[in-house]
Amino acid sequence: MKVIELHESVTESNDKDAAELRKSLSYEGITLINIMSSPGSGKTTLLSRIIKDIGNKVKIGVIEADIDSSVDAEAIEKLGVKSVQAHTDGMCHMDAGMTRAAIEELGRDFDIIFLENVGNLICPAEFDAGAHINLMISSITEGDDKPLKYPLMFKESDILVVSKIDAMPAFNFDLDKFSERVKGLNPDIKIFPVSAKTGEGMACLENSLLIR
Amino acid sequence: MKVIELHESVTESNDKDAAELRKSLSYEGITLINIMSSPGSGKTTLLSRIIKDIGNKVKIGVIEADIDSSVDAEAIEKLGVKSVQAHTDGMCHMDAGMTRAAIEELGRDFDIIFLENVGNLICPAEFDAGAHINLMISSITEGDDKPLKYPLMFKESDILVVSKIDAMPAFNFDLDKFSERVKGLNPDIKIFPVSAKTGEGMACLENSLLIR
Repeated sequence: MKVIELHESVTESNDKDAAELRKSLSYEGITLINIMSSPGSGKTTLLSRIIKDIGNKVKIGVIEADIDSSVDAEAIEKLGVKSVQAHTDGMCHMDAGMTRAAIEELGRDFDIIFLENVGNLICPAEFDAGAHINLMISSITEGDDKPLKYPLMFKESDILVVSKIDAMPAFNFDLDKFSERVKGLNPDIKIFPVSAKTGEGMACLENSLLIR
Repeated sequence: MKVIELHESVTESNDKDAAELRKSLSYEGITLINIMSSPGSGKTTLLSRIIKDIGNKVKIGVIEADIDSSVDAEAIEKLGVKSVQAHTDGMCHMDAGMTRAAIEELGRDFDIIFLENVGNLICPAEFDAGAHINLMISSITEGDDKPLKYPLMFKESDILVVSKIDAMPAFNFDLDKFSERVKGLNPDIKIFPVSAKTGEGMACLENSLLIR
């Protein structure tokens, strides 16, 4: 596992860079999935579960982006999947240039590359990382009011994973109200309530990632 | 309840502004407490509990900072406490100038002013908001690895509230390992495990806020 230090791209046109990266990955048959959420929503846990479930069907590579530490990339490597740990030099997001630099290190011999973005509901939504699918996670422990407070993240995402549903009995989380708020912001978003712990809902989510 | 639109301060010297704000509040006998955490760690829930518990002993005012929505300020006003909702113009933190502007709206006839910062573990730690106490919340549902990933926030905080401990049986959270990691970054930080739901640990936390 490599650890790379990234810095904000000097280019002014992130949207253009992102479109080019997406196109070049498509050309090579690679799907880039950008996973975004608050800290502690369960990005690495979900990713580990997906790798265990479908890692024998598709070749998966992982970019772990964090300000500090390499604990996530180490956890992923233990599953036998190639990963790079990208440190973002204090920045709270990955842009297209940074993602491209991380892919240079990771290589391109994959069907799916997961980018686990920095844990943050604000900045990552503002930068197109060049992904084909923006997948956000919102855990039920965070409460059902998150769409009201972080609308951009919900608007920019293609897939919304509602995580930790096994803990539902211990929390006041109204899934209907939450889904209604989300659909009000983004009518096209696909919502998957799951528990990476018990496996509930995982097959349905994984199928949607494989079908593309 | 007022909603005010704030913009990044034009001044270059946030540290100087913060020191001046802190001094002027001290002079008037006001303690400013800056509450920081991930989205959904329970800032508003904790604050509501504190207001119910000690609101009859001290005069409390609240600044709610968010990118969007006014749900938090509305929840606080229902408890009979004066609050202003500050919108941060897309920014993921409050600086000293923004905090000062919010206090202008709120008034200064208080013993304690709580600033509920934007839900984010990165940016708010980088800007001194002029508070006397930096209080961060980390919920057990977020996992015990957060100090490894967001070291600055743990270093900059005076008080760490470990929230949602009532849900401990449903999560793999090692409080000893977590505390050890935190103390490694910040030996002087005071750690309070609490449940705002059941009230466990709240009296101890509240005493520490009142003693100052």
